[in-house]
Amino acid sequence: VPDLVAALATCVGEAHVLTDPGVVAGDCTDWTRRWTGRTPAVVRPGGVDEVRAVIAVCREHKVALVPQGGNTGLVGGSVPLKGEVVLSTQRLDAIAVVDELGLQVIAGAGASLAGVQVAAAAVGLRFAVDLAARDTATIGGMVATNAGGTHVLRFGSMRAQLLGIEAVLGNGSVVHHMRGLRKDNTGYDLPGLLCGSEGTLGVITAVSLRLVPQPASIAVALVGFASIGDAVRGAIELDGAIGGVEALELMLADGLAIVAAHRSVALPSVATAPATVLVEVAGDAAARVEHLAGAVGALRGVVGEPAVALDAAGRARLWQLREAHPEAAAAQGIVHKLDVTLPAAVIEGFVADVRALCGRIAPGASCLIYGHVGDGNLHVNVAGAEVDDQVDEAILEVVDRAGGSISAEHGIGTAKKAWLERVRSPGDVAAFRAIKRALDPDGIMNPNALLP
Amino acid sequence: VPDLVAALATCVGEAHVLTDPGVVAGDCTDWTRRWTGRTPAVVRPGGVDEVRAVIAVCREHKVALVPQGGNTGLVGGSVPLKGEVVLSTQRLDAIAVVDELGLQVIAGAGASLAGVQVAAAAVGLRFAVDLAARDTATIGGMVATNAGGTHVLRFGSMRAQLLGIEAVLGNGSVVHHMRGLRKDNTGYDLPGLLCGSEGTLGVITAVSLRLVPQPASIAVALVGFASIGDAVRGAIELDGAIGGVEALELMLADGLAIVAAHRSVALPSVATAPATVLVEVAGDAAARVEHLAGAVGALRGVVGEPAVALDAAGRARLWQLREAHPEAAAAQGIVHKLDVTLPAAVIEGFVADVRALCGRIAPGASCLIYGHVGDGNLHVNVAGAEVDDQVDEAILEVVDRAGGSISAEHGIGTAKKAWLERVRSPGDVAAFRAIKRALDPDGIMNPNALLP
Repeated sequence: VPDLVAALATCVGEAHVLTDPGVVAGDCTDWTRRWTGRTPAVVRPGGVDEVRAVIAVCREHKVALVPQGGNTGLVGGSVPLKGEVVLSTQRLDAIAVVDELGLQVIAGAGASLAGVQVAAAAVGLRFAVDLAARDTATIGGMVATNAGGTHVLRFGSMRAQLLGIEAVLGNGSVVHHMRGLRKDNTGYDLPGLLCGSEGTLGVITAVSLRLVPQPASIAVALVGFASIGDAVRGAIELDGAIGGVEALELMLADGLAIVAAHRSVALPSVATAPATVLVEVAGDAAARVEHLAGAVGALRGVVGEPAVALDAAGRARLWQLREAHPEAAAAQGIVHKLDVTLPAAVIEGFVADVRALCGRIAPGASCLIYGHVGDGNLHVNVAGAEVDDQVDEAILEVVDRAGGSISAEHGIGTAKKAWLERVRSPGDVAAFRAIKRALDPDGIMNPNALLP
Repeated sequence: VPDLVAALATCVGEAHVLTDPGVVAGDCTDWTRRWTGRTPAVVRPGGVDEVRAVIAVCREHKVALVPQGGNTGLVGGSVPLKGEVVLSTQRLDAIAVVDELGLQVIAGAGASLAGVQVAAAAVGLRFAVDLAARDTATIGGMVATNAGGTHVLRFGSMRAQLLGIEAVLGNGSVVHHMRGLRKDNTGYDLPGLLCGSEGTLGVITAVSLRLVPQPASIAVALVGFASIGDAVRGAIELDGAIGGVEALELMLADGLAIVAAHRSVALPSVATAPATVLVEVAGDAAARVEHLAGAVGALRGVVGEPAVALDAAGRARLWQLREAHPEAAAAQGIVHKLDVTLPAAVIEGFVADVRALCGRIAPGASCLIYGHVGDGNLHVNVAGAEVDDQVDEAILEVVDRAGGSISAEHGIGTAKKAWLERVRSPGDVAAFRAIKRALDPDGIMNPNALLP
């Protein structure tokens, strides 16, 4: 270990190799506090050459490393579970001047999501991905996990924002493809491959990100439905009938009641419907709201009058009902968080199955189900004293049988590694392993994540 | 060769191993007639297991193979240049029942683009990618080359349409990831990696494709600008100012004059402006056209009155001016077709540089420049007796110096292989080679394409 630490110091300077147990403790535990490990050193390279040097030292010393950004992941993918070196991207936080005509910006891996959002907003643009951890989550970590959020429906996840990437692979190669061109069929899609690879192939050091225009205005509506099936079909029809739909979020009556009690707010009457969909539409507000009213009128199973908000304060009031779901769940006890995708046709049956299952295995638990219904992505939060891993297993089993995905957004990490071979075909996993061996032949990159 | 042919016949049946030189001649020459090769056999597997068997036979006999769909590529990537076996996807042409609620359809690699479009339209949906070779181009070939077209601006290229993929890799693994989920962070992005790999990693056998709603109506306008720079900025501003812009196509006065003479049509007065942009907007026509007029009024450098069409016949009249560019170029002599992307800020200078360069190297040639300005993607067609590869080289040199891409849509194929290492970093190419070795260890997959 002293040799390793000394060698790392020659790469990044002594000041950027942290070994004090008190100082590195935060980097050894994940945000959910479910996974804790230990590390001989947290290194903070200041540029791509230093990252390359750190990887070379780790290969030489046969020590694995875990890349770490904001450490806000939910599947234990960014902590050193078995004594790996932590490569922190903290110092790779530069955000370049926004290219206004090219609608893009170059950001270091360690830049925060909020930093990129502010840079874009300063010139009247916006970054299309948003999520609650924006002040802490880093762009590098969000790319490595292909993060999503509430606007994937319209703009796609992080992979769809990537116009270029710089990274150092586990085999020492430096990928550098940063021209920021929207169309470029010159070789394999390295940005897309590294995006979502969870640090198992290399360390992302910088990316070029597309930006989108700020909308002239935004309208938000809550629409009530007589059933979950009506809500799913209604959401899909709304997206087809009106342009500029940015978010379609499903909430259920029991979840909304828990949120209302937790936040001590009164619910709009529409929110007592069995299923409620929050619709956000961007563009010309007047025209869109008229459209929205017409389109809602054409749907089956609509209950009550939609609650509509055009001003920022009103929109925030409606959005808080959706955004308070995780904290309302947390207030019920330890939360088991599942993040799954289902084919639209089976969502109603899935919710019934999960409720029945929770009633059977964890009868005292709260089960909040909500999420991005436009993408088929549901968050299942089960909270209560008697909830254990058996609940996760049982729910993921239902997801798999229903033809869904066990990870819509959060990734596999260490949490769902054991599941990978159950939900992906043997040929898929063989291809993953072949790619892993090719780009990280010594297996030093984030060995506890993704591949079992 | 008799052994090989017999072994292939055991895989697919004798009737599907074609060896008659007259019968296979068409498969040995590409659509542009620039590349011609020879093959011991064209094999037509009828399913994924037969594809797997054909690949196994080729590996055993140490013979390479070239996957071939509609053979409409423009870079010589689908012909057996050095005696490879041709694997035709012709029989893999099934199109499943459209999943209307899931907004998707499963298509075999050999299904035509038009076939998918018709299936989608039959249930009121559409497939977002369109291009002129729609009746012949196959879905498998379009995925393998990440094909684009006129609506990439709004919907992305083929990679953005992929919800799932089935393929047999060069190493014999069968990739099968066909749940068709919009969000699925379970491992490396195999669909995105195979898309654009030009048949060098494996044979795509089927895909799940996303579909989008049919718009209520479509408006098309031609807007004239005083300069190319004004047109580029104007196009980008229009896309930001109004929702639902589906296409932004740049045309220049000299090109439009050639088109008008070739087709014997009168040009609308706006088309005599130095630069003209065709704008297609989908959605509610009345609202959009009002928006469009307002947004155009706010731009700098607009010349004359925009020509607007709301009905199908009028739209087709405006679109034909753009779509007739390739044939008008072909009427001037042998065409050298370049397909490049440039940063928005340098497009005006690039056009001037290419015109100057053509005037110097090929003074008698016609030089038509047009394309998808919303993506920075220009098509450069140089036609005339004295045009040779020197012109291509000189133009690609300008593209590279300007920070552009030498292939926006068409791919590298065999045509631009020699350029790959000039425009991509050594680390990028090393990563390509490592991935190639991992997934196609014997190097039997399309050896003449992409990697030099």
